[in-house]
Amino acid sequence: MIERIAILGTGLLGTSAGLALRAAGFRGSIVGWNRGADGAQVALTMGAIDRIATGPLQAARESQVVVLAVPIYATLDFMEKLAGVLGSDHLVTDLGSTKRQISEAAGRLFNTPERAAFLPGHPMAGKERSGAALADAELFRGAVWLFTDDADCQRSAHSAELVKGWREWVVAMGSKTIDLDPVRHDELVAWVSHLPQFVATALSALLQDEVGDAPELKDVGGRGLREMTRLGASPYSMWRDIAYTNTEAIEAALHALEQRLAHLRENLRTPELRDEFEEANRFRRE
Amino acid sequence: MIERIAILGTGLLGTSAGLALRAAGFRGSIVGWNRGADGAQVALTMGAIDRIATGPLQAARESQVVVLAVPIYATLDFMEKLAGVLGSDHLVTDLGSTKRQISEAAGRLFNTPERAAFLPGHPMAGKERSGAALADAELFRGAVWLFTDDADCQRSAHSAELVKGWREWVVAMGSKTIDLDPVRHDELVAWVSHLPQFVATALSALLQDEVGDAPELKDVGGRGLREMTRLGASPYSMWRDIAYTNTEAIEAALHALEQRLAHLRENLRTPELRDEFEEANRFRRE
Repeated sequence: MIERIAILGTGLLGTSAGLALRAAGFRGSIVGWNRGADGAQVALTMGAIDRIATGPLQAARESQVVVLAVPIYATLDFMEKLAGVLGSDHLVTDLGSTKRQISEAAGRLFNTPERAAFLPGHPMAGKERSGAALADAELFRGAVWLFTDDADCQRSAHSAELVKGWREWVVAMGSKTIDLDPVRHDELVAWVSHLPQFVATALSALLQDEVGDAPELKDVGGRGLREMTRLGASPYSMWRDIAYTNTEAIEAALHALEQRLAHLRENLRTPELRDEFEEANRFRRE
Repeated sequence: MIERIAILGTGLLGTSAGLALRAAGFRGSIVGWNRGADGAQVALTMGAIDRIATGPLQAARESQVVVLAVPIYATLDFMEKLAGVLGSDHLVTDLGSTKRQISEAAGRLFNTPERAAFLPGHPMAGKERSGAALADAELFRGAVWLFTDDADCQRSAHSAELVKGWREWVVAMGSKTIDLDPVRHDELVAWVSHLPQFVATALSALLQDEVGDAPELKDVGGRGLREMTRLGASPYSMWRDIAYTNTEAIEAALHALEQRLAHLRENLRTPELRDEFEEANRFRRE
């Protein structure tokens, strides 16, 4: 029943979503919009979208499903604007990496019988470099796609059908969906996504200071070093909003790791080091 | 001119060295020895060695080049024993991950005109799981193979030729060799190898404590989480000796990272976060 989709933000994720929808057999229209014109042109050339929208609100109005694929604060801005122009025959969903603020805004601005539906979503997929040119129809295959929907909200029958339809397309794109409470979501991703990113950033920045002036010595590190610093290439422009909207959970995770590293440092010559290795082995085994 | 090689320790690295020598065209004999009989049998079956030695010292005596592919303290033990039974027509080399203590022992026990040569070596290659069964003839291709040789030592002409010959085989196995002072070596690998390992161990152990009871939530993390914790599978048995023989440099690196993480944690909402991302980006760009 979904025949008209608008993708607002044709960067890596938005463009990949368009390609993945096509690969999964979506035959309706996909209109794309991007703040910078280049990204939309690349998405069009790659076949992720059919046409470039003249404006985001107009494109949203003419579609049934609006996919917000922009940073978190831009998502929150769009939510304010879209709530006023969309109605109960629309669904808005997003791809943002933190969900507490977005879910709060969804409850405030959407999800009544008269208003558009808003389904907060978060595909656990991405790359350390951004941009439409790196988009991939297979990006979401095998990934978990988290939703933090409010099960008690009262939607129109029509928009509830759109929610069901979008969930089916997510599965068709190859993802496994999991539903979580938004607060639990933000705590969980602080551990399994944000903490690894900030560790990679701190490690890469530290190594740049320590051995950055001797590029030949970077070659000394093998696959382990490359993997542990790959996320060091991630752009601040994306992570700024994540740091701002999940500050406390990230602080707690970073603080716990600092303590763990200090414990390990103080026990390099004691049997505690064995315990730490065995606990780490357990994480990889299960 | 090298025609008889003994590999003492047919684990992942020793067995891979045998396979890589064969792949590079080495046609002489390779005798293998392992503390546990299984490893040597696997190496024999894989074609990494021609026969299993009855004892390590006998095998060493009958060879021209002895490759020590055992943990660091076992390497130091072998050095004491081999110094008494080998002469100026032998070369001993090793694959150990720290080089200060091994280089000191080499100067004390080897490298005079009457004694065997000892060339301290360290291929920057490995896997997070050990054992002959995972050995790979291509393990050293593209890797850096570090040497911390004493350029001033007085060797017999014959053993000096063996050193030259072994370096050529290392290049033939696909590695790029770099010569370093042993103290500088240990400081450098503390940053680019040991620090990434201990961070992966601490991160994996912490995540096991935090989300280990909810295995379905581990799926939530994507490629980034898998990469950042892959080294969490590394065995304590190997890293114990590294922690013992490079304690101060590892402590310094861990402490620096703890401070860097604290700095990042305290600046999640300030422009300092951008500076850290940009410094990290620089490490990956150059």
